[in-house]
Amino acid sequence: MLADLYFGNPDWKVFLLCIVITAFFGGSLILSNASLAHKISVKQAFILISSVWLSLSLISALPFKLSAMDLSFTDSFFEAMSGITTTGSTVITGLDTAPPGILLWRAILQWLGGIGIIIMAMSVLPFLNVGGMQIFRTELSESEKVLPRTAQLASSIGLIYLFLTLMCIIAYMMSGMQTFDALAHALTTISTGGFSTYDSSFAHYENMSTEIVAIIFMVAGGLPFVLYLKAAQGNIRPMFTDTQVQGFIGMLIASITATSIYLVINNIMTPGDAVLHSAFNIISLVTGTGFANYDYGQWGGFVVALFFMLMVVGGCAGSTSCGIKIFRFQVFYAVAKVQVQKLIYPNGVFIANYNGRPIASDVPMSVMSFLFLYALSFAMLAIALSFVGLDFITAMSGAVTSISNVGPGLGEIIGPSGTFQSLPDSAKWILSFGMLIGRLEIFTVLVMLSPHFWKS
Amino acid sequence: MLADLYFGNPDWKVFLLCIVITAFFGGSLILSNASLAHKISVKQAFILISSVWLSLSLISALPFKLSAMDLSFTDSFFEAMSGITTTGSTVITGLDTAPPGILLWRAILQWLGGIGIIIMAMSVLPFLNVGGMQIFRTELSESEKVLPRTAQLASSIGLIYLFLTLMCIIAYMMSGMQTFDALAHALTTISTGGFSTYDSSFAHYENMSTEIVAIIFMVAGGLPFVLYLKAAQGNIRPMFTDTQVQGFIGMLIASITATSIYLVINNIMTPGDAVLHSAFNIISLVTGTGFANYDYGQWGGFVVALFFMLMVVGGCAGSTSCGIKIFRFQVFYAVAKVQVQKLIYPNGVFIANYNGRPIASDVPMSVMSFLFLYALSFAMLAIALSFVGLDFITAMSGAVTSISNVGPGLGEIIGPSGTFQSLPDSAKWILSFGMLIGRLEIFTVLVMLSPHFWKS
Repeated sequence: MLADLYFGNPDWKVFLLCIVITAFFGGSLILSNASLAHKISVKQAFILISSVWLSLSLISALPFKLSAMDLSFTDSFFEAMSGITTTGSTVITGLDTAPPGILLWRAILQWLGGIGIIIMAMSVLPFLNVGGMQIFRTELSESEKVLPRTAQLASSIGLIYLFLTLMCIIAYMMSGMQTFDALAHALTTISTGGFSTYDSSFAHYENMSTEIVAIIFMVAGGLPFVLYLKAAQGNIRPMFTDTQVQGFIGMLIASITATSIYLVINNIMTPGDAVLHSAFNIISLVTGTGFANYDYGQWGGFVVALFFMLMVVGGCAGSTSCGIKIFRFQVFYAVAKVQVQKLIYPNGVFIANYNGRPIASDVPMSVMSFLFLYALSFAMLAIALSFVGLDFITAMSGAVTSISNVGPGLGEIIGPSGTFQSLPDSAKWILSFGMLIGRLEIFTVLVMLSPHFWKS
Repeated sequence: MLADLYFGNPDWKVFLLCIVITAFFGGSLILSNASLAHKISVKQAFILISSVWLSLSLISALPFKLSAMDLSFTDSFFEAMSGITTTGSTVITGLDTAPPGILLWRAILQWLGGIGIIIMAMSVLPFLNVGGMQIFRTELSESEKVLPRTAQLASSIGLIYLFLTLMCIIAYMMSGMQTFDALAHALTTISTGGFSTYDSSFAHYENMSTEIVAIIFMVAGGLPFVLYLKAAQGNIRPMFTDTQVQGFIGMLIASITATSIYLVINNIMTPGDAVLHSAFNIISLVTGTGFANYDYGQWGGFVVALFFMLMVVGGCAGSTSCGIKIFRFQVFYAVAKVQVQKLIYPNGVFIANYNGRPIASDVPMSVMSFLFLYALSFAMLAIALSFVGLDFITAMSGAVTSISNVGPGLGEIIGPSGTFQSLPDSAKWILSFGMLIGRLEIFTVLVMLSPHFWKS
């Protein structure tokens, strides 16, 4: 609202109306529940998480529906869900001339979604045993010795998040961005969301320093935030010794090297450009940001296949990025190593380790179930998308990009130079569902589909 | 050799030469090892399995290399590996005019590969704990009360296999096939291999009864052979109560129904044709046979995506079909159900069942590792294939069709109306490796890549 007022855009009335509506519903809920006890059961926690993300998406879709953009209800909901889940897929064309209030609203949604996900991943999911997240319980309880209460933890993390965002705004401005663009892009960079204020995304800036700033802060958003907390408390060492960080950085270096070599030997780019542009686009996909400055669909089959797989992998747990996440691959690797040892020595006793500690007995099964459920959800989404008429590559990459909360897909339609606008409404609802389950680590939502869940 | 002699084709000399070469090597190995003890360790069993399948492929590539077909070494090896693993991908064009000896040789390779896989899956893999196959150990030991020795088990299964093949030959002949074609197709139907004697595969026959015969015997080849053994001993009941069979048949009915409805509502076929042709092509893909009578790539995105996923699923363990296999999905489902119950009641005790028995504690982890390793191998194969220059759909479907031992892929080049001939040699070697690891349940091969394996 303030942005529209500042730039003299009449849409500020829309935001004022939305504030009133939201305040009315929020106020009513607070007043009607204020006297109730705050202790909730495990089941209620699952219902709460899913319904919070769903109702946030509904409420935040209002400005899109009511503003001068005049989006349909489906498009508004899709855009809001894509924002809140930090996916970054968009149905809006004509961003370059869109009102500043809407542009900032999209960025704020991703920024709030980003911090929401970090706090949820640090304070709620580990205690719900979702998809092996319980492995971070020890890590958390270590920090809790210093910060005993979740509320305090949330505010510390929030401060770090705010600090990184401010740094990012300043860095963008120093690289030559205008103030408004720097603010909007910083909000969507640190949250690895990927909404831009231009249809052409980062291709708008043909500027090396802007690209480097984006690279640095996308990586920053893809690291586990608990490590920043430790660093702020003076313990910088875990930032370098953490297994997940090492795997994340190692994977980035390997993929960037492979892609750069491929681009150079196929005479697509000079070595310098190849390293810079492959770093930008790979980091953008792995962290689930979804900024694009090249149509990498044109870089050849190897790049398309590699990028497809990288979208699936994702960043670190406890960060703003999504996807399967590095630690699950590492837990799997540790477990598979033990499996292989057992195949060779059927009577031997072997213990799987992660981050220097033995992996608790319930973690591997939890991780494996997650991986399989992820694959199954991907298959179902892809089949559903193709059923409503999408072609093979659009359906496959649409399924991945939604469940991994990346943003752009592959191919002509939803690739880095396209948008989701032309898809049928049914596909948009399927994709919105994909974003929601992907963001909430799948189990959190699907647990409610089990008949056991509803038994008293 | 006999076929070429009978049809007066000079290639019989090639087969005679191959017999001499094989007899020389085989004889030397027998004579030089006859005095050694026959007790082998677990490690030696893994080495033995992989080296047997590899050397069989090498030896059986000889006739392709030496015959009038004059294939390159790469093509010969690819064709032999595709035969032995019952994949059915081919690099040969001009099958309609190929010498009868070669056509029969391809069929025999698949037939022998088929029985080899069944016996291995029943008598070796369950005891090596590969990918959850240990779940069938109890089943096997039940049969062993009646048939105490592996050799006797193998000969009983062999007799059943032979009987089914003869039935299939007769049925094909009654449907109007010529004797030679009936023989060749029966060998590749019951082994769910998929080599045909015509470039156009089953599209050569525009004959409903031929199609129905193929449907029946592909399903027969996709069922667990231990159930035939039980049926032959008078216990027919398991054939209907077995969890895997129920899942297999249920999945077939569901997919055929969905595809038929899709084909009818999109006005692609009449209801009768839709059911018949979708049944034929779905069963051909699920069992990993790979016969085709329509270019289903033209049936629309939904069919392509569904068929892609069905290729991954595969048939029943203990049959000639490949892929992930039904029982692994069922074990996963049982385990996921327990996981969900545990999420809801963190302190409850729940037990996963399969086929009416509790699942042993080591099975779920073994199955999950298999599933993940399958996904990882698929990703690696797809990336490798795209690196050597294949487009997205060819690389993705090539990776799936090789690791699932199906045969045809999707798209213009390797789809049901194409061949693998035009691919670069490097892609053929990658695909051959994919077929081998897919056929040997991945772990059997990959265990040898572990450094632990080679420690004394």
